Amino acid sequence: MKHLVPLIAALALATPAFAQEEAASVTPTSIVAGAPADGWRAIAPEDLLVMDLAPAADGSARRVVIQLIPPPFSQPWVKNIRTLARAHFWDGTSVNRVQDNYVTQWGDVTEAKPLPEGVVSPVADYTVQWCSYHVCPALPPVGNLGRRLTSEHGWNSFVEGWPIGELEGRSGTWPIHCYGAVGVGRNVAPDTGTGAELYTIIGQPQRHMDRNLAVVGRVIEGMAHLSALPRGSGELGFYTEEEADLRVPIVSVRLGSDLADAPRFEYLDTASESFARYVAVRANRNDAFYTVPAGGVDVCSVQVPVRRAG
Amino acid sequence: MKHLVPLIAALALATPAFAQEEAASVTPTSIVAGAPADGWRAIAPEDLLVMDLAPAADGSARRVVIQLIPPPFSQPWVKNIRTLARAHFWDGTSVNRVQDNYVTQWGDVTEAKPLPEGVVSPVADYTVQWCSYHVCPALPPVGNLGRRLTSEHGWNSFVEGWPIGELEGRSGTWPIHCYGAVGVGRNVAPDTGTGAELYTIIGQPQRHMDRNLAVVGRVIEGMAHLSALPRGSGELGFYTEEEADLRVPIVSVRLGSDLADAPRFEYLDTASESFARYVAVRANRNDAFYTVPAGGVDVCSVQVPVRRAG
Repeated sequence: MKHLVPLIAALALATPAFAQEEAASVTPTSIVAGAPADGWRAIAPEDLLVMDLAPAADGSARRVVIQLIPPPFSQPWVKNIRTLARAHFWDGTSVNRVQDNYVTQWGDVTEAKPLPEGVVSPVADYTVQWCSYHVCPALPPVGNLGRRLTSEHGWNSFVEGWPIGELEGRSGTWPIHCYGAVGVGRNVAPDTGTGAELYTIIGQPQRHMDRNLAVVGRVIEGMAHLSALPRGSGELGFYTEEEADLRVPIVSVRLGSDLADAPRFEYLDTASESFARYVAVRANRNDAFYTVPAGGVDVCSVQVPVRRAG
Repeated sequence: MKHLVPLIAALALATPAFAQEEAASVTPTSIVAGAPADGWRAIAPEDLLVMDLAPAADGSARRVVIQLIPPPFSQPWVKNIRTLARAHFWDGTSVNRVQDNYVTQWGDVTEAKPLPEGVVSPVADYTVQWCSYHVCPALPPVGNLGRRLTSEHGWNSFVEGWPIGELEGRSGTWPIHCYGAVGVGRNVAPDTGTGAELYTIIGQPQRHMDRNLAVVGRVIEGMAHLSALPRGSGELGFYTEEEADLRVPIVSVRLGSDLADAPRFEYLDTASESFARYVAVRANRNDAFYTVPAGGVDVCSVQVPVRRAG
């Protein structure tokens, strides 16, 4: 019966008192708007990847801003990505694959462009030994987040602003693929990819990608420039040679710390009381429009609030 | 301790023997390709809604095919939708809203077009008394499907080819919003909408929509014609008046049974052994590329296989 203990614990967490106390006028949006200033955390400029695509047909700019994931997650790839950005590796490459309900992927379509020195596919694990969910202080008791991710009753939560998965006593903690997550394309395992080929999730996230591909960041602005592109008709959604004109040129990719006029962002602290309320209300929408509270929420439906700073 | 019984039962179901027996070369795709002919179920022509949008800028056709949901789900709205299609209500209307990671919505942008006689917002529940998950024979023991949808430990499964949610002993069974699901737009509750205004999910499905909005079908072909459209910059992703030219005109919407050359489709029987294997392998990808099986799968990641028939 040992394996039932986490389930019992989860049930105890599932109905936080404040979930019942919110007024009907309280929505996820109103909670974020009312969060105190000290509940927000600045995103460091070196954790921003600013990708400028060629302008749209109507001449409008297309900028995509990606937040890179902080330690302890995926750092071998994040290091590569900083090296690639500083070497201007992606300038002149393109978006090459758009598969509906799956991913948009970009990089060097020729697969022949030399990589900067030191950028190799790391021998690294997709998980880190971060904590065990029942002792880790960073996992907030936000209620209703637990979801039986695996047959070994893994759980989801948030650590340092990121959605994570964890499997008790087995393989540690890992960042998970949600809509807008940025990951590292690769060939057949045990290759782990370098980070030169990146994708983002544009549909239902697939749990089977977690721990098999490295999550290195998430799109925090300009997502529609990647999600609303024409789908490729080739295998896996790659643009065929006949569709070569659909490949959106990438003008430049720079680290925020290397741009004079880099935009500044901040995210809602996932250990804050505001975030806990935000999650609970997301799980229990109960206002004029939504009259039947779901009583639960998928971790990927809880987008961590990110906004422009300053 | 009574409430723990379903959890124990679920754990027993969580590791079906066949999940361990599949060869590494077996993938969801290979299982669907190898499913016997008698494992497929024809979709009736009157359950097809064929929507022809105005041709794309390059002159190519844009047809979207929707499968309407069968009884016992959402039938008051499905009846309205058949009436609206037969009255050619949608001809000359348009796609008016595209909100990233949420929905694409279409209908009469003027909100002034008269509805056919008899089409009113039904006084109907979003759930049906179908069965209780632990006695209903239609819920296959596919393993790893159980996921704690709510704090009252609801479950997901498949009935008659559709993903469903169920809450033990409370409010019956309901169809759930997955990517490509088609639902009924409405105003503030208790209005339930007529079906004249429809949307489809183009991102992470939100469990809080279930039981608050009626799922009436799903897109089975041409999804990219709705998911890859430019996002609207107005509130909730509606196109503003300045963006009026982005509204894609709807040329016609017809029931398959009213079209001489209607396409024919079939879906994989969700009570079949092939479907059970398909789900188990989706939950435990273990091949040359995916080497760490997730051990579980979101019900919305299990897209029911649908293909052209004949």
